[in-house]
Amino acid sequence: MIIVMQAHATPVDLAQVVSHVEGMGLRPHVIVGTERTVVAVVGAERAATASGLETLPGVASVLPILAPYKVASREVQSEPTVVKAGSLVVGGKRIGVIAGPCAVESREQILETARAVKKLGATGLRGGAFKPRTSPYSFQGLKEQGLQLLAEAREETGLAIVTEVVSPEDVPLVARYADVLQVGARNMQNYRLLEAIGHTHVPVLLKRGPAATLEELLLAAEYILAGGNRQVMLCERGIRTFETHTRFTLPLATIPWLHARTHLPVIVDPSHGTGHANLVESMAAASIAAGADGLIVEVHPDPKLAASDGGQTLDLPAFGQLMSVCRRIAAALDRSLD
Amino acid sequence: MIIVMQAHATPVDLAQVVSHVEGMGLRPHVIVGTERTVVAVVGAERAATASGLETLPGVASVLPILAPYKVASREVQSEPTVVKAGSLVVGGKRIGVIAGPCAVESREQILETARAVKKLGATGLRGGAFKPRTSPYSFQGLKEQGLQLLAEAREETGLAIVTEVVSPEDVPLVARYADVLQVGARNMQNYRLLEAIGHTHVPVLLKRGPAATLEELLLAAEYILAGGNRQVMLCERGIRTFETHTRFTLPLATIPWLHARTHLPVIVDPSHGTGHANLVESMAAASIAAGADGLIVEVHPDPKLAASDGGQTLDLPAFGQLMSVCRRIAAALDRSLD
Amino acid sequence: MIIVMQAHATPVDLAQVVSHVEGMGLRPHVIVGTERTVVAVVGAERAATASGLETLPGVASVLPILAPYKVASREVQSEPTVVKAGSLVVGGKRIGVIAGPCAVESREQILETARAVKKLGATGLRGGAFKPRTSPYSFQGLKEQGLQLLAEAREETGLAIVTEVVSPEDVPLVARYADVLQVGARNMQNYRLLEAIGHTHVPVLLKRGPAATLEELLLAAEYILAGGNRQVMLCERGIRTFETHTRFTLPLATIPWLHARTHLPVIVDPSHGTGHANLVESMAAASIAAGADGLIVEVHPDPKLAASDGGQTLDLPAFGQLMSVCRRIAAALDRSLD
Amino acid sequence: MIIVMQAHATPVDLAQVVSHVEGMGLRPHVIVGTERTVVAVVGAERAATASGLETLPGVASVLPILAPYKVASREVQSEPTVVKAGSLVVGGKRIGVIAGPCAVESREQILETARAVKKLGATGLRGGAFKPRTSPYSFQGLKEQGLQLLAEAREETGLAIVTEVVSPEDVPLVARYADVLQVGARNMQNYRLLEAIGHTHVPVLLKRGPAATLEELLLAAEYILAGGNRQVMLCERGIRTFETHTRFTLPLATIPWLHARTHLPVIVDPSHGTGHANLVESMAAASIAAGADGLIVEVHPDPKLAASDGGQTLDLPAFGQLMSVCRRIAAALDRSLD
Repeated sequence: MIIVMQAHATPVDLAQVVSHVEGMGLRPHVIVGTERTVVAVVGAERAATASGLETLPGVASVLPILAPYKVASREVQSEPTVVKAGSLVVGGKRIGVIAGPCAVESREQILETARAVKKLGATGLRGGAFKPRTSPYSFQGLKEQGLQLLAEAREETGLAIVTEVVSPEDVPLVARYADVLQVGARNMQNYRLLEAIGHTHVPVLLKRGPAATLEELLLAAEYILAGGNRQVMLCERGIRTFETHTRFTLPLATIPWLHARTHLPVIVDPSHGTGHANLVESMAAASIAAGADGLIVEVHPDPKLAASDGGQTLDLPAFGQLMSVCRRIAAALDRSLD
Repeated sequence: MIIVMQAHATPVDLAQVVSHVEGMGLRPHVIVGTERTVVAVVGAERAATASGLETLPGVASVLPILAPYKVASREVQSEPTVVKAGSLVVGGKRIGVIAGPCAVESREQILETARAVKKLGATGLRGGAFKPRTSPYSFQGLKEQGLQLLAEAREETGLAIVTEVVSPEDVPLVARYADVLQVGARNMQNYRLLEAIGHTHVPVLLKRGPAATLEELLLAAEYILAGGNRQVMLCERGIRTFETHTRFTLPLATIPWLHARTHLPVIVDPSHGTGHANLVESMAAASIAAGADGLIVEVHPDPKLAASDGGQTLDLPAFGQLMSVCRRIAAALDRSLD
Repeated sequence: MIIVMQAHATPVDLAQVVSHVEGMGLRPHVIVGTERTVVAVVGAERAATASGLETLPGVASVLPILAPYKVASREVQSEPTVVKAGSLVVGGKRIGVIAGPCAVESREQILETARAVKKLGATGLRGGAFKPRTSPYSFQGLKEQGLQLLAEAREETGLAIVTEVVSPEDVPLVARYADVLQVGARNMQNYRLLEAIGHTHVPVLLKRGPAATLEELLLAAEYILAGGNRQVMLCERGIRTFETHTRFTLPLATIPWLHARTHLPVIVDPSHGTGHANLVESMAAASIAAGADGLIVEVHPDPKLAASDGGQTLDLPAFGQLMSVCRRIAAALDRSLD
Repeated sequence: MIIVMQAHATPVDLAQVVSHVEGMGLRPHVIVGTERTVVAVVGAERAATASGLETLPGVASVLPILAPYKVASREVQSEPTVVKAGSLVVGGKRIGVIAGPCAVESREQILETARAVKKLGATGLRGGAFKPRTSPYSFQGLKEQGLQLLAEAREETGLAIVTEVVSPEDVPLVARYADVLQVGARNMQNYRLLEAIGHTHVPVLLKRGPAATLEELLLAAEYILAGGNRQVMLCERGIRTFETHTRFTLPLATIPWLHARTHLPVIVDPSHGTGHANLVESMAAASIAAGADGLIVEVHPDPKLAASDGGQTLDLPAFGQLMSVCRRIAAALDRSLD
């Protein structure tokens, strides 16, 4: 870290900072400039309890240098992680597409959707059985019955099942049915849940929280990785900004930025990322062009009847059109959806 | 809700919307304007599954009318809720101040802090035993041992204990020791946790998530209230914006806005809300002036040694100064801290 | 507009609202619901001075219905506007690429850049002569001498000149040299400037302000269009959000959203939109995939020596690589860069 | 500045950075850490063209150290600037209150308002004659006639006139009538306007842009100060965030943060900062409690008839109530509104 002293800091202030840093077991380098003095501390910064340094007299600010994540970092593993969950392969040349309804609503609905998206090229099936809903008065999901219907859909179509788990105590149950455990945006910093998932060997789709920095996303992944589970996919699904014409703002620069820093694959969710069905295809195409390793898309045979998120859900023809465009763009970049 | 049709919507589009609304059991009112036609639907909107309406042909947008929360609403209960947890009373004329360290670190630290803040006028003691930390490599709290130390501090000082619970399975344990269960900002939408707390009778301090709208905050409170627990305090602790000179941006208009819509008391956390000790006193004073029913403030006998959040933590003299300023402002508004 | 009454509004409140609306020359439709009463007003809303309505007793909120822009709207002109400025054609099948340095620094620099980007496929040359700089102590541009150098570069290469104008009084001067007048993000709501440009016939590149909604962008365009100048290109260049790993957050859903509402072409600036050279190619590719009609990219023969914005500037090989990727993606979507 | 090298940077990369820094006339200090090497450069950083440094091979990031503003800084002038404009005195113990309508609409309206706010304790009169409006179809102000009416109101009441100037060419005209030139939020980075005002000796009220950092606000002030005009008041009027229940989010931590860094007084605009009349009093009170040196408030004898901004405008009794509360809070802090 770099400790910047105030312009009027005294020699006593400086000595106290130096001594405090030494007391932390680190080595300070004092550099006296024409306008400011700085103390550079380059060492095992992560372990240090530096939070109180800025309260010392004469300290103007403390700037960190090291990224706080480790196992997720490219510096630790330079080749990309390829996540495999049954028919779903994500990472490297292969782009995986996960499609399906927001929530599992009925046997007919999920089976019809599964058959159709499989035919159109999806390799994963999404569908919520445990639904975290903003309002306690909204539909909360079919719970275990929903998981059974998803398993039946896998049985018939071979699609990998991607479904959300919302509480540490549900992890064993959901892991019995799912090929991929999804951590929703609201739970990105539910550390107990991350820890519980870290102790399984089931692949994970970790969604970015709408106010999370990418460093916080990588640190959330680090909770899972640190538990021993290395099969983590990161998912950009939009952030909260002042924009209101979309439900969230979908920042695709996330993709190359993460690729430069982590070996974990990056998935994009253009459905939540926009909130409007008519924007989903363009943003799916843009995601592939920006290097995404996969997509997760809300698809329903009849969106106007969907129990939740209908406004951002594609019908089957629209999903077919999305797949066709994304296939062409992937091909132009020497990658493949199939 | 109001359904706004596109300028070029056809009579067939309109008929389909009307019939869809009727199929939802609601009554549509069609109003034909010079440039647009709108369909007004004023009814049991909350129960309706309206999410798919905007995918119907010819629909430009769907505007909600009713606020989605009920039990939290002023329309249901007009007089303010007063939360009482031992010596801590929040709501009405009484302003409660909760003070203490970010985390319980040792017996000596928590007892020294408790005695000092009690003397300076606090009526609640904060201190984390279960710490949700952004990095898996940071100090995670003393767990049950921390709770025992908090109970000991209560024993000696009479201060009400306010401490965080991070997982539904911990609720019984933490409820055994705590006078107030704190739900942290990261867990504001951890619905299982909210439900578990809703089934206790322990008062709750519910922190706003840094990207949560006030409607989402009230809906999170609604999860607790709907479970039967009516002793809920809402806490503004800052939102994530483009500003970087503060850790979060602390929007105090939250206070009068919430007071106009809910009977629940509103607490402000100027420590997390700014992230810098030298801004805390001003924002505490501003909170009282804006009508806050309480404060929660990080205080440590020696902030530079704090295991976490040291940069935003007041030492004891600074906390005394804060109390003195807040007392004068409360008096100017005919309220009282004591 | 829709006027939502409070739950406890009285008949007198309602009568006053109705009478106020009638006094505005508009026709109110009162709809009494089970929980709320609303007053729908569908008429010449834009002309009305509605801003005081929400202060009337009993009014809970006022929701607008009509979009406030007109001439820019697809409802007024359904076929896309194609902007032509010399060799630069933007709109329809043709994608235009504008490349060049942040600022014109010297004859050699601008000529070398112009020749190189022309060869790599650009049809427009960017370069600032009047530079609006955040700090008064930064390089402010070569002013008219810079314009002369740009004209010389056009002479030699045939590239269309795109350069910024920052003040109404400079419009005649800059218009003498430029093929496209650029309005920078800081000036998007400099209405005098927009009006002055609206009275010329020179094509315009109008950049979105970093905190502007898309409605505000369209209203800024409306100032130019209302003056008689219809050759307006809209430019997304990133918005200010809580993200700090990029200089701005680049929201590409802007492209399909604008295309659905306006006939004006949409350009993307991936250089300012990310702030880092290593993210520019991916975001340029994503922009084309999302349907952008053009790109504006910062390119310099030696970015480390650039007088401004060096960190986000591509060198010539990187720009060549960007063009090659974008060409392939455009072809996959049946569009063309050439 | 601090240049952080990548973990895998080579000695050749390091040598190139060192040599580049030396070529800029600055002195690099290389510090080799266990995980990273950093190059500290502490010197005349502001003058340097550092923007290209991060494009050098092996460079991970470049962190600035020095604040980029000078004349506005507390380090240059430690005692607070007191701005005096006729009867309006802002800074030190004295709190100034500027009140009046959004726009001057008629002789009767402005005179009635002036008399009333004067009686209630205001020392400045606001009122727009040149109105920058988001839509070209909205009321644009009475221009010079509006200025004459303001002057007449000053004649009668002695209030200082605070009115906006939107273009450099209008500065001489507006300066003939106004006691304080207001720079609106949209023009905070209209540098030509700032320069023109910097060459007058008329006091200035500089509003923060809704997406401007406080550093950018201070740099905008620096444009005026650098021209020789030292009578600058900074004005916080809210920033754009994801919140929609208020028009802007009003971050009052601005006040103590600015007071610690600049000698210029800080004014708050609770009308634009909230956008709703019923939130204005609380936020005015909070501003005073947080240490604001003044307020600027929208007041109109009949807000529902206001030509603009009616929803956020106080009527006269509400303004009287605001003054009474603010007076009590100021007194509690040993300051005075009168």
